[in-house]
Amino acid sequence: MAKVCIIGFGCIGSGTYEILKHNQDIIAARTGESIEVKYIVDIRDFSQHEVAPLVTTDFDKILADDDLDIVVETMGGVGPAYTYTKAALEHGKSVVTSNKELVASKGDELFGIARQNGCKYFYEASVGGGIPIIRPMLTSLNANNITEITGILNGTTNYILTKMIKEGTDFDTAVSNAQKLGYAERDPSADVEGHDTCKKISILSSMALGRKVNYEDVYTQGITAVTSEDTKYAESLGCAIKLIGRFKQAADGAEVLVSPMLVDSSSPLYGVEDVFNAVKVTGDMLGDALFYGKGAGKLATASAVVSDIIEVLKDARDDINAPWLPCSEKIIKDYSHIRGSFLVRIKNEPDAFALALERFDNARTLEFIDGEFAVVTGELSVAELEASLEGLDVISKYMFA
Amino acid sequence: MAKVCIIGFGCIGSGTYEILKHNQDIIAARTGESIEVKYIVDIRDFSQHEVAPLVTTDFDKILADDDLDIVVETMGGVGPAYTYTKAALEHGKSVVTSNKELVASKGDELFGIARQNGCKYFYEASVGGGIPIIRPMLTSLNANNITEITGILNGTTNYILTKMIKEGTDFDTAVSNAQKLGYAERDPSADVEGHDTCKKISILSSMALGRKVNYEDVYTQGITAVTSEDTKYAESLGCAIKLIGRFKQAADGAEVLVSPMLVDSSSPLYGVEDVFNAVKVTGDMLGDALFYGKGAGKLATASAVVSDIIEVLKDARDDINAPWLPCSEKIIKDYSHIRGSFLVRIKNEPDAFALALERFDNARTLEFIDGEFAVVTGELSVAELEASLEGLDVISKYMFA
Repeated sequence: MAKVCIIGFGCIGSGTYEILKHNQDIIAARTGESIEVKYIVDIRDFSQHEVAPLVTTDFDKILADDDLDIVVETMGGVGPAYTYTKAALEHGKSVVTSNKELVASKGDELFGIARQNGCKYFYEASVGGGIPIIRPMLTSLNANNITEITGILNGTTNYILTKMIKEGTDFDTAVSNAQKLGYAERDPSADVEGHDTCKKISILSSMALGRKVNYEDVYTQGITAVTSEDTKYAESLGCAIKLIGRFKQAADGAEVLVSPMLVDSSSPLYGVEDVFNAVKVTGDMLGDALFYGKGAGKLATASAVVSDIIEVLKDARDDINAPWLPCSEKIIKDYSHIRGSFLVRIKNEPDAFALALERFDNARTLEFIDGEFAVVTGELSVAELEASLEGLDVISKYMFA
Repeated sequence: MAKVCIIGFGCIGSGTYEILKHNQDIIAARTGESIEVKYIVDIRDFSQHEVAPLVTTDFDKILADDDLDIVVETMGGVGPAYTYTKAALEHGKSVVTSNKELVASKGDELFGIARQNGCKYFYEASVGGGIPIIRPMLTSLNANNITEITGILNGTTNYILTKMIKEGTDFDTAVSNAQKLGYAERDPSADVEGHDTCKKISILSSMALGRKVNYEDVYTQGITAVTSEDTKYAESLGCAIKLIGRFKQAADGAEVLVSPMLVDSSSPLYGVEDVFNAVKVTGDMLGDALFYGKGAGKLATASAVVSDIIEVLKDARDDINAPWLPCSEKIIKDYSHIRGSFLVRIKNEPDAFALALERFDNARTLEFIDGEFAVVTGELSVAELEASLEGLDVISKYMFA
């Protein structure tokens, strides 16, 4: 049984607790052992919460607990988070974090301390919420010289810009909408002024270069000056304005900046809307790879934290379960039992149309070409579809994905 | 110095050799040691090739070489590839493969042999070419119950369907175009009949379930029956026809199928065209994550092979380099030296338009709103842009991403 301590029981910290509980069987199967949250460090009052018995403020007791494997730091900021993280690593306890500010400003030092003490400092949740980006860059892309990274790295600002572009909303109204929906904080400056994106692109740039990029050195312009007229101009050029964090290797040095930029409609980043994030990474061998998903949210981000916890535990074991085990039975459903909605083109023979209307009472009928018609079915199984098509002359049929 | 043997010196095998050579310094820095190709096993004649001294057919010699760390199997098929892989693993040598057929049919057995012998069997290159998908699923997503996987997993068929949809080309013409461009084999049946996609979705489904899904059990329909009329019908419904490999957990069991399906324009898979691949993975905690990139090609796929080689070597070491090292200097360029193309909105004061035309001789001028005009510049640095805008009253400016 692996033992975990969560420091900072806010949104991501409590999400981490929930996932470890909700998916405990899957996680135990993949990790080779189960995981228990032994302590929660938070100064707030959780006495009415089920976790009350776990809550403590005595971090020294935790450091002295030889039974404890991993510290999860989800409190944010540099001050106490830095102190706790450093102390944990110095005591040989691996730390998993969602704290982009701490990783961007002290990552290099903390990686060094972790290495000296035979433990890990993992930070998948610090960039892109739950989207896998840190570990793919550290593993799957490591045959490549990373020449360019272009990212929509902040969901709040992307939501605001999407509102401005799609609905012509002005900046202030879009911000207050985002606040109402819980996407923006009461003080939205870290997001709208680009500071959040700046820390994230600094982390990715440091990984690409293998040396620390100081985030204070990165030119950072937010979206506060973007007007609806600007978004219309962009549209007339076939572009959308997005807040972009960009890293680029040029012949004369590396370029890193955060700025609202024009993204052409041919780019896979163009259609990334609302609170979604996307990161395009270019490797000299691979070409472009795109990572896309929900860049924020309690469980999405906590999912990245838990994946790091599992990696720490797997790193310490040699007997990790195989990706899959042998299985002699057929473990998937027969095709005939698969369910879906279908488009079916049917020859318009005598009575066929009337028969189809009778069989597919929820179906939409369309007429396109002489001599045929089509139905779009509701959800049913392949077998049910086949039965319903009995006696009809089918030209072609497709399931909706 | 780590030593590698490549079995099968075709497209991906030779690409692996090239990447190990081209990026040897980066790879050595990330791995902690350099990597040398010591043997190449191939029955073809490479006597005129620079690798001639490495080529052998004596696999027993290789198995007996205690100095050899990793076998790269890029020959494809099940027969000899299976024999070689099994023998290598039984001799404690890790194997890295791009062979989807072998992984789909014998993966479970080979993982077991690897585990028994304290070595690894890695297969990132078997699905999605160079797109990171296997390792992210095994690591970054492992806090999740994977509920759905929807993939465009075959570049050849996606190219053919794109031609049919965009240019109204019929199926046979599109196939022969794909052959001319080297995207399709002379016998295109493995691609167009969906067998390639079937093996790939079987691998991903096995990972999601943790038990082997037999690819023979998977309903597989290719694109040979898709007509231009079908693609027009799809379009009229706001959809595109794509060859989809899909895994889905339903209440009554797992569904796996390969079929041309209708993809709605709201899906991130809708815009995936030509030889690109994309895989949408849904986790119960994370929601949707999308992985997108070039699903085939010599160096892209070999990039995945090399990433697996590096992972094998990193797994065997504790002193892996930190993701980035401390750096006290400013290692990125000043903002003023960053280069790009810009859109600039300028107030139309007396002489401003003439001045802009003079300064931006390659610029396009546009007129939208009374009292202003805009220029789109060619590539120049921020400092050059600022100098060129001297004396002009700028309303807003944006760099193109």
